[in-house]
Amino acid sequence: MHRERFYTLTASCPDQVGIIARVTNFIAQHKGWILESSFHADDLDGRYFMRIEVKADSLPFHLAEFRSRFQPVANELQMDWRISDSAVKKRVVVLVSKQEHCLYDLLARWQSKELDIEIACVISNHDTFKGFVEWHGIPFHHVPVTADSKAAAYAEVRRLFEEVHGDTMVLARYMQILSPELCAAYPGRILNIHHSFLPSFVGAKPYHQAYTRGVKLIGATCHYVTEALDQGPIIEQDVIRIDHSDSVEDMVRYGKDIEKTVLARGLRYHLEDRVLVHGNKTVVFR
Amino acid sequence: MHRERFYTLTASCPDQVGIIARVTNFIAQHKGWILESSFHADDLDGRYFMRIEVKADSLPFHLAEFRSRFQPVANELQMDWRISDSAVKKRVVVLVSKQEHCLYDLLARWQSKELDIEIACVISNHDTFKGFVEWHGIPFHHVPVTADSKAAAYAEVRRLFEEVHGDTMVLARYMQILSPELCAAYPGRILNIHHSFLPSFVGAKPYHQAYTRGVKLIGATCHYVTEALDQGPIIEQDVIRIDHSDSVEDMVRYGKDIEKTVLARGLRYHLEDRVLVHGNKTVVFR
Amino acid sequence: MHRERFYTLTASCPDQVGIIARVTNFIAQHKGWILESSFHADDLDGRYFMRIEVKADSLPFHLAEFRSRFQPVANELQMDWRISDSAVKKRVVVLVSKQEHCLYDLLARWQSKELDIEIACVISNHDTFKGFVEWHGIPFHHVPVTADSKAAAYAEVRRLFEEVHGDTMVLARYMQILSPELCAAYPGRILNIHHSFLPSFVGAKPYHQAYTRGVKLIGATCHYVTEALDQGPIIEQDVIRIDHSDSVEDMVRYGKDIEKTVLARGLRYHLEDRVLVHGNKTVVFR
Amino acid sequence: MHRERFYTLTASCPDQVGIIARVTNFIAQHKGWILESSFHADDLDGRYFMRIEVKADSLPFHLAEFRSRFQPVANELQMDWRISDSAVKKRVVVLVSKQEHCLYDLLARWQSKELDIEIACVISNHDTFKGFVEWHGIPFHHVPVTADSKAAAYAEVRRLFEEVHGDTMVLARYMQILSPELCAAYPGRILNIHHSFLPSFVGAKPYHQAYTRGVKLIGATCHYVTEALDQGPIIEQDVIRIDHSDSVEDMVRYGKDIEKTVLARGLRYHLEDRVLVHGNKTVVFR
Repeated sequence: MHRERFYTLTASCPDQVGIIARVTNFIAQHKGWILESSFHADDLDGRYFMRIEVKADSLPFHLAEFRSRFQPVANELQMDWRISDSAVKKRVVVLVSKQEHCLYDLLARWQSKELDIEIACVISNHDTFKGFVEWHGIPFHHVPVTADSKAAAYAEVRRLFEEVHGDTMVLARYMQILSPELCAAYPGRILNIHHSFLPSFVGAKPYHQAYTRGVKLIGATCHYVTEALDQGPIIEQDVIRIDHSDSVEDMVRYGKDIEKTVLARGLRYHLEDRVLVHGNKTVVFR
Repeated sequence: MHRERFYTLTASCPDQVGIIARVTNFIAQHKGWILESSFHADDLDGRYFMRIEVKADSLPFHLAEFRSRFQPVANELQMDWRISDSAVKKRVVVLVSKQEHCLYDLLARWQSKELDIEIACVISNHDTFKGFVEWHGIPFHHVPVTADSKAAAYAEVRRLFEEVHGDTMVLARYMQILSPELCAAYPGRILNIHHSFLPSFVGAKPYHQAYTRGVKLIGATCHYVTEALDQGPIIEQDVIRIDHSDSVEDMVRYGKDIEKTVLARGLRYHLEDRVLVHGNKTVVFR
Repeated sequence: MHRERFYTLTASCPDQVGIIARVTNFIAQHKGWILESSFHADDLDGRYFMRIEVKADSLPFHLAEFRSRFQPVANELQMDWRISDSAVKKRVVVLVSKQEHCLYDLLARWQSKELDIEIACVISNHDTFKGFVEWHGIPFHHVPVTADSKAAAYAEVRRLFEEVHGDTMVLARYMQILSPELCAAYPGRILNIHHSFLPSFVGAKPYHQAYTRGVKLIGATCHYVTEALDQGPIIEQDVIRIDHSDSVEDMVRYGKDIEKTVLARGLRYHLEDRVLVHGNKTVVFR
Repeated sequence: MHRERFYTLTASCPDQVGIIARVTNFIAQHKGWILESSFHADDLDGRYFMRIEVKADSLPFHLAEFRSRFQPVANELQMDWRISDSAVKKRVVVLVSKQEHCLYDLLARWQSKELDIEIACVISNHDTFKGFVEWHGIPFHHVPVTADSKAAAYAEVRRLFEEVHGDTMVLARYMQILSPELCAAYPGRILNIHHSFLPSFVGAKPYHQAYTRGVKLIGATCHYVTEALDQGPIIEQDVIRIDHSDSVEDMVRYGKDIEKTVLARGLRYHLEDRVLVHGNKTVVFR
């Protein structure tokens, strides 16, 4: 990510001759300085994807005017598109349970401005991290989830997310399955870290499953949450080597290092508008 | 592997106090020089595993006498055990189809004595590599496999394997599914390389499956063949990073590099008696 | 690491016939239950290394008596040896400057008991993390280091380390070079994380050096501190892939993930008595 | 790489507003279909890099006309540029000594058309692989190199390279140091695989150096050859984990797997015109 203020245009459209030319002409006409640009053609589906960073002060107008001036180009190309401003910090809501590793990791990155975001609040079904979160000056909400209270609990999560104008919800080892309604309300905006290398070991206790199968590597997967459990579009994955001497507890411990790193990378790609969802897959312009 | 001649003792037995002492005392009494030793306790199953390399000329007797003298110790400890001699080269039979990468890789390692084995013969359901294999002075057998000829074909494979006194059969991207009889005949002696990170993407066209699911890493798995397709004990696995820009063809290409490396590593562990099968898992003393 | 209490014996001695037998006999005679054991022969130097975990309550005596009873065995074998008790938590002193990633990471691991240690205190040449550390109930000492005050500052660091009976000192991105006296006072007890893949890019600004050289991977190294800067025995290393699009700032960011993971792994090996120093190298029984 | 015929334009120029627009406009005007495109701005040096693949039959003219029509655009932008045709196979000359792993690996990739090149000839200072190379139908030249014959030997290498109209020279573990004249004659066209993770362990016996230093990972580096030994622009690198139990011989063996993979990847990037040299660094558009 660049230090100076910039706009990030992301778009997809049917593939045809002249797309890059059409879009970059528009930018060049207005003296827009392109900092970074990435393009991808999905040959099978005939769809085109792009991400362009333009230096904000190189343009003679602001985002609102960019939007209205660019709309005809987008129409012409039948584009799905959006543009964001690096000066507007994304508002992230973090959901956790009782495991600390992803939470500490995210707060360290936020603290150092490596993740240049607002953490609007932290929501948990336990109060374990209330003191820790509040010490950082971040609001903490304890929303218990029991078999009976699920509907109410998820309604409350949603209310809190709306109240703080959340852009992105991060399940940082949140050990509850969100309701289908909640998943459906924010497509491409809820990130989860699953503690296996999907599609292996879907669902509960993936490290136990991995132990039983005798695999030689374990992994973690950052994906967008959809109504189908652990089936959403994958953003990032990684693995770590284990061997016969590792117990399930060892695997849980090793796994944490992969989980927090994969979540942090996936979240960064998402926040920097590097991820474009395409069906149940992602284009990630790293 | 050490250059001087050595014996490799591998064993497993119920765990109890004094196993290492009992075994290493026997070796020390006979002035046996231990080059390398590895031990593993499976806490859940209460089973103990070991592998010990003893310098051959440090002992006052040869393998046959080692076997008879050690048997009482093994009986006492209720051991499953075996001992091999580094001077006796393992006899390997390689099965291939039309893909060259694993075959070239194995022959290069054999050529340079990195794999210090006899390649007793190569068997293929195609004659693609007849010239290449024979140029290396290795017998080549073309055993076609058609829907109707399967039983006869696998009988022939078995006959050839027996005829050359094969120790180990290696499916080096052999694109046929062995018969249950053949699998059952040589438990822990047939190695396969599967072109996915098992248990993901069992069966046919795993790279297509991986493409469709949108995973961010692809892998390969070296495992012992059992009657259940792609379900046998895993010996070695590895992965390689891909991204949205990679087509299935790209994945096939990247995958080859992982396949041949994982097969070579798994085969080496097997040939050096580093792999002990434990149920459907393996202990690999690297 | 096992849950039940255990003793860890680590030793090295000249290689000869019968070492394992001699040591494991001693343990077996006293009904000691071996949980884990590792052995290594350095063929070039003729030196033998071992690490054995024995279940504490399987033995009929405690550590003091183990020590006195084992000493004759050790003498016989000319052993350098030590034994530790898993019930006695190691006392760690952490030194930091202004970068948060290693500190947050260590505190998260300590918080969850993944690192089952006492953090006796945190010492820093800045007061940046005073509040954060103290919130965790850990004493914080601000010991400024200026060009003129170095001698006094390191004397104070040493006094604090002694006062809290520190076992291990961890330089968690402490951006000062310790005095030769301090290094010499605690051989094999001070761990540093260097932000390059040593021996490449010794000294200051390794990421800038890496950028200039155009390497395709960057790394981090956890090593014991000696008087020679960045030359001490290496405990653990790892790398991460970069490319031409990564600026020095990107490399610093990626590097943090490797630094904290490598430091945590190296520290764990050290605290679990898995590291035996051998000249300027280490044997690490993972 | 795509199956259909395409042209690959690679270029660099001073950075300014409108570069992408200018170039892609030219292509779009002629109905050129862009298959793949990559752009990179070096912020520090103010230089811009690009690589564009255009489907050959989407354009109304051939390469010669493309060249002459594009030249004014290139002049305007002060570009260094070139364009290649996927239908014209690159002519590669491979230099080897007595180690087989890179040679077998390259021939397997060539055999399967994974590397879609002509291997114009193989040159070696030994005759070890004469039979193997010639069996593949590739000319083999034995050019001995002795202390006295160096000048004549390298003159002969150069003559052979010119005679077969070689595009690229690959040192596939060629254990001789090319003369400065030869290096200077083909800048950016001679690839070497060095058996260490440069800049660590320059020069002879890098695995011995690595063993002595006690590193925990070893690596390999594919780079362009320049007159300064092991100092040329790095194209690709990778590493593999080792530990205290690995001898120099083990490291040599592990290293081979990294060497051949890194060389193959680096060579592929080079052959597909994915590598742009920039001072002593490379931009690699993977």
